[in-house]
Amino acid sequence: MVVLGIDPGIGIVGYGALSVARGAGLGHVSPLGHGVITTPANTEIPLRLEEIYADLSVLIDRFRPDAAAIEELFFVNNITTGIAVAEARGVVLLALRQKSVPIFEYSPMQVKIAVTGYGKATKRQMIDQVTLRLGLSEKPKPDDAADALAVALCHACSAAATLSSVRRGI
Amino acid sequence: MVVLGIDPGIGIVGYGALSVARGAGLGHVSPLGHGVITTPANTEIPLRLEEIYADLSVLIDRFRPDAAAIEELFFVNNITTGIAVAEARGVVLLALRQKSVPIFEYSPMQVKIAVTGYGKATKRQMIDQVTLRLGLSEKPKPDDAADALAVALCHACSAAATLSSVRRGI
Repeated sequence: MVVLGIDPGIGIVGYGALSVARGAGLGHVSPLGHGVITTPANTEIPLRLEEIYADLSVLIDRFRPDAAAIEELFFVNNITTGIAVAEARGVVLLALRQKSVPIFEYSPMQVKIAVTGYGKATKRQMIDQVTLRLGLSEKPKPDDAADALAVALCHACSAAATLSSVRRGI
Repeated sequence: MVVLGIDPGIGIVGYGALSVARGAGLGHVSPLGHGVITTPANTEIPLRLEEIYADLSVLIDRFRPDAAAIEELFFVNNITTGIAVAEARGVVLLALRQKSVPIFEYSPMQVKIAVTGYGKATKRQMIDQVTLRLGLSEKPKPDDAADALAVALCHACSAAATLSSVRRGI
């Protein structure tokens, strides 16, 4: 199956696609592509939302994901920025839903534990682990793309664990 | 011109459409229709966003607005609810943008002043003034529809004031 991880934002949306060999355990996860959608600063929000929607729709058509993984949103910093991020997130959820992609949400801590085994991992530790576990020749850049790969990897682990449980009749 | 006011939410989106006689001053604002889009509770957010997008698109096609008016969003209460409202707002902005409807945003205080002349008007005073100024036979219900009519009226006033200024060469 193909998992598309997404890290939503208004100026930059990270994405990362993984191929997960069904029922083959965690060792068989391979990267299909990652990158970012960017929108021009100093542009009205509706125009930026339109661009995110259009570009993400193209990515969904390209990767044809069986599942999308996205982090739950918590506001901790700037509220104005947070509103714009949530607006972008709404458009991302809409685009996925309209193309019938099942959406799975994970908390930041779930993603950290899945990727590094440690719920308080630093950003650097996360990026290192993502790079290592996906066998990438260099660290994924920018951070938004790495974050998207991390949440995709988190879903790949959960999905593999669920499949194992099912196979074992648990 | 036709102004479509929108009051976004995840469970309920208010809308109110007004016809504004161009250059005819504030006296010539007439209601075209108002109501709400509702989405089922206990349903996943992406499904609710999809429904809001689809229903709003139908409303845009029905009223063919020359402008949309929407309140700026400020979070004051529950953050989880606020995130869902912002996600819905993102989808509303996208639908309007995709149909090339110019979007105008007003602060809650701007709307109150435009409708009642008083920036700290109560909800009851707002609803009474909307009912009176639009010549409605009864108060618009639910409150979300009244809120949408209020922001549409706010834009109608601003637009009329701008037109008057232009005519007077100010």
